[in-house]
Formats: sequence, C-alpha cells, structure tokens
Amino acid sequence: MNEQNAMKPYVIGLDLGGTNSVFGIVDARGEIKATTAIKTKAYDNEEDYVNASIDALHIIIDQVGGIEKIKAMGIGAPNGNFYTGSIDFAPNLPWAHDHSVPLAKMFSERLGGIPVGLTNDANAAAIGEMIYGVARGMKNFIMITLGTGVGSGIICNGQMVYGSDVLAGELGHVIVRPENGRPCGCGRRGCLETYCSATGVARTAREFLEKSDTPSLLRDMNPEDITSLDVSIAAQKGDKLALEIYEFTGELLGEACANFATFSSPEAFVFFGGLTKAGDLLMKPLVRSYNEHVLKIYKGKAQFLLSALDGSSAAVLGASAVGWDL
Amino acid sequence: MNEQNAMKPYVIGLDLGGTNSVFGIVDARGEIKATTAIKTKAYDNEEDYVNASIDALHIIIDQVGGIEKIKAMGIGAPNGNFYTGSIDFAPNLPWAHDHSVPLAKMFSERLGGIPVGLTNDANAAAIGEMIYGVARGMKNFIMITLGTGVGSGIICNGQMVYGSDVLAGELGHVIVRPENGRPCGCGRRGCLETYCSATGVARTAREFLEKSDTPSLLRDMNPEDITSLDVSIAAQKGDKLALEIYEFTGELLGEACANFATFSSPEAFVFFGGLTKAGDLLMKPLVRSYNEHVLKIYKGKAQFLLSALDGSSAAVLGASAVGWDL
Repeated sequence: MNEQNAMKPYVIGLDLGGTNSVFGIVDARGEIKATTAIKTKAYDNEEDYVNASIDALHIIIDQVGGIEKIKAMGIGAPNGNFYTGSIDFAPNLPWAHDHSVPLAKMFSERLGGIPVGLTNDANAAAIGEMIYGVARGMKNFIMITLGTGVGSGIICNGQMVYGSDVLAGELGHVIVRPENGRPCGCGRRGCLETYCSATGVARTAREFLEKSDTPSLLRDMNPEDITSLDVSIAAQKGDKLALEIYEFTGELLGEACANFATFSSPEAFVFFGGLTKAGDLLMKPLVRSYNEHVLKIYKGKAQFLLSALDGSSAAVLGASAVGWDL
Repeated sequence: MNEQNAMKPYVIGLDLGGTNSVFGIVDARGEIKATTAIKTKAYDNEEDYVNASIDALHIIIDQVGGIEKIKAMGIGAPNGNFYTGSIDFAPNLPWAHDHSVPLAKMFSERLGGIPVGLTNDANAAAIGEMIYGVARGMKNFIMITLGTGVGSGIICNGQMVYGSDVLAGELGHVIVRPENGRPCGCGRRGCLETYCSATGVARTAREFLEKSDTPSLLRDMNPEDITSLDVSIAAQKGDKLALEIYEFTGELLGEACANFATFSSPEAFVFFGGLTKAGDLLMKPLVRSYNEHVLKIYKGKAQFLLSALDGSSAAVLGASAVGWDL
C-alpha cells in the first residue's frame, strides 16, 4: 500500500441496481467497513437520488473517520459508461430512462472532488474479481454473469476491454443459434442469454416439458411459474428432466465459451450470478462441453471458476474496485 | 522520430511463408528500402535456413549502410509465438514441423544482438495496419485475413491481444454453424474459415452448383477445379450463381463480425488477403449483413476497411512493424 493509500485507506462502492442502491466503504483487502442502502426508484429525478445518496453516505463516511479517509468512489450501474461517467438511457431507472445522467461528476462534486469512476455492473464484477476475487493476479480472463440476463466483462493484458465506445463485452448477445434461435429481448434471435440465463433455463424447462413425456416434478407446476430455482431444486432431487435441462444449458454455455476462447484465449472463465447456485449441475456439463467443442490448441487450458465473493456484497466490492483502479 | 531512431532508422521485416521467405528493410514511414528473398522449404534444418537468410540479408543490410543502421527485426511466421520468439510445430515448414525453433534468438545472435520479435502472420498484419496502414491511430480494431484460411489479429486498447498463451485471435475457427456445419481441417465442424476463405468460396460454389439448376459460367468447369478467383471473374461478368455465392459469403462473414462486435466493439474491421480482391462483391453484402445482424447499440458504428498496403509488400511491412513495436 503506498503512502497515499495509507492516508486514504478506503474507497466507496455503489452497486446501483434496479431496485436497491447499496453503498459500501471498502478497504484495500476487500473488507466492507460500513454499508448503507436506499431505494433506487423512490426518486423522480437524479438530483433527488443523489441528495438521498449523499445523506445516507455521510453517516457511513463519518463511521470510518470522515471524507479525508476516502480515496475514490466506484459505481457499477446498468448502462454505465466508463468513458463519460454517465448512465445513458437505462430502461429500468425512472430518473435515467430518457436521458443521460452524469452521475460520476455529480457524486464527485458532492464528495469534495474525490475521483469517481462509473462502469456497468458486469465490468465492475470483472474488476472486482481481478482485485479481490478468484482472478487476483490474472491478466486475461472473462467474467460471465448469469442472472436474469447474461452479462460479461473481459480482461485482456490486465485491462478492461471497453472497446471504441465503452460498449464492448456484451457476450450475452452473441448469437449462438443463428438458425431458428429463440427470440431475444434485444429484437434478434438466438442470443446466448435466451438459453443460459435464469429466464433461459425457465424457457428450456417449458420447452422440454412440452416436447417430451418424461415424468417430472416440474409437471406439478404451472409452466409459466417455473423458475430456474425450481429446476435446480428438482435436479438436486434427481429429477431426470430437470437434469437434462441443466445438461442442455451447460452444453450450450460450454460451446459459447469455446468460441470466446478463439478471441482472447483467457486463463479463466469466472462465473457469477443466480444461476451459478446450481453448482456442478451447470459446471460439469459446461466444462465437458467446452473441452469437446474448443479448438485443439486451447483444450484443457482455461480454468472454470465460480466467483468466491459473497453474493450479497460482491456487487458493492466490484463497484468499489473501480475506485481503486482509477 | 527520436534520437535513437535517427541513428538507427530501419527495421528488418521477414515474411516467412510456406513457400517464400521475403526480407525487407523498412523505414519508419513504411517505405521498403531494400528487399530480398529465399525459398523457405529448400533447407533441411533451421541452421541451414538461418545461414541462407543471413547470407541474403548481409547484401541488403550493406545497401542501407550496415547493421549499425538497423534498430530491430520483426518476423511474421505461421505458428509464431510472440512470448517465446519461436515457431512451434508448424505443419508446413519442413524444418519446424516436429519441434520448436527459437528463430528470434537465432537471428538476434547472428545480427549483432539486435532485438528480434516474432509473431504469427495475422498478428503481424494487424500491427502493420496499425503502424503504417488504414488503422493508423486506432486503438480498437479487428484485422481479418481472408486467404486459403481465415486468420485474425485483434487490437484492444492499442495493444495486440495475445491472451494467456499467445494463441488468442483465431477467429477463423469460431463456429458459425453449430448445427450441420461444414467439416473443417481442425477436426470440428462449422468454422468460419470453412465458409469465408478462398477455399470456402470454392466449396460454396460446388454446393450451389449441385443443389440448383441456375445456369452459370461455372458449369463449364470441372467442379473440383473451381477457385474463388473463378467465382469472382464469373460474378464480375454478372453470372447470377456466382453473385449468389458472394452474397452468401458476405452474409455469413457479416453475421460473424456482428458477433465479434459484442466482444471488443471495434472502431473498424480491416480485411486483407486474396478474397478481398472481389471488392464490393464481398464487402457490400458483408456490411449489409453486419448491420442487419448486429446488436442495436453497435449498429452503423464500425468501419469496414480493406487493407491499403500493397499486397506484395504488406506481409513484409507487417513483419517489420513488429520490430518497431518491440
């Protein structure tokens, strides 16, 4: 830790989600020293949102000894733009859905001018893994978040790949089934996230239930109500159809990762998000499929890792890591 | 140009191909001051190959004022490994097909210890475009070489993406048709290069001739003898089937580039190689298909460029650029 870090030993992390905005004050080892939260959607405009955030933050900043102890702030947010520090047209945020909000600048001005960096949530997760998590010390890895959708953050040569417009790393929208793929929310068909997200698993369940007669615990449910968690619970009880659903999901994700390897030949793929709770149900077919599908020169090389950051704090840690990286 | 460059104004480039090894002495503007060549396969072992190379090089080095004028050497070679400076198990090189040849070190020792960098041909082409070519000043672009096979070199944040093992950037082996794809030389099916290389175009021609009755100039030929050049000549005469073959090729390549955009959101795709001689026949359907298939946030952003480096010297320039980049 250098002298400046010793005097300013903390960064603020903000995990700005569609529902909650969680703040944490984090030290260089990834220990959360104080935390607080506000409701993201309870505000009509960005000024009110920032005012409420600053009120909440002052309390936890005082707990760690005041703003003098804070080096920087990092924000992970949907549609966050690292180059401009703004949130651009985020469909799920009432105060940012129809314009661009210069959130990094607004926070910096209200926090005595400390540097504030903002990036999207998947990129923040990748930086978090590199600084505090299972990818510590790695220069080349791909982070894939498997939640409601599929997000990604790509690290090459020890740097985040932002691309020409900060919009790089949308691997959830790689088209994995170019012929007769599933319709995606993005308006196209066959995107990875229509198969390998939590909602993708639920879609697979409905498809498999319809096209087969295999008995299954899932048949006791209204097909529209089935979630990936239900599938995972059934699979853990040995339900054959549920196991097939995870086989299919892992198989397709492994095939996709095999294609990603040709791009950046990563040392590891790191997975995070709700779907990873299925553990080996997902990871075993994934790794097997990867090694079956990948070009020979890459075979058996990449590690497949689950994020070891605690789920509830990982997003805040990821956001805070952006602060260390400024 | 800094002082050292003023005193050592040249680099040597070696384009080490399966048939010819072409040497050039190049200045910082990409002007080739002297050039020579030897036959790559005329030697039984690497010592004989390097001896013959040094004999040929001495003549052109003397032409530019001696080894004191040379800053470095860059080599572009099949299976070239930038991290180790060796050529590893290159199937087409009689003196390197069954072992690893530390070629960079061998040349450096014979050239008074100047730095020698070695990378594969597609990466050399990408660095060449960044230093002398159409990608000058770009920090994020993807170079795709469309020859007998499909190669690629990826630049992110102004740096070559080598990955964890220097084997990144094999986009010719992205599987673009996961279901019933064409068999590929790599042992898998559906790789991009089975469709969008010179040999891929010839395969498409044979497929299209067989499955349709459309009259075509190509029917006058023995199907096994058809090359991509024949298809291009027929298409330029307005041959309907030949035009459809290029439509299909461009369509598929555009679809693939749309997927690549999700990875690194490049400022440009730069194309090089025999197939690009077809010009608009390939590029128009390619750009149209890209914009049809790409995720909305990337639409209309990337440039599609043809390498402006002279075909016969581009590979030598690319190799020499590796020398400037050391």
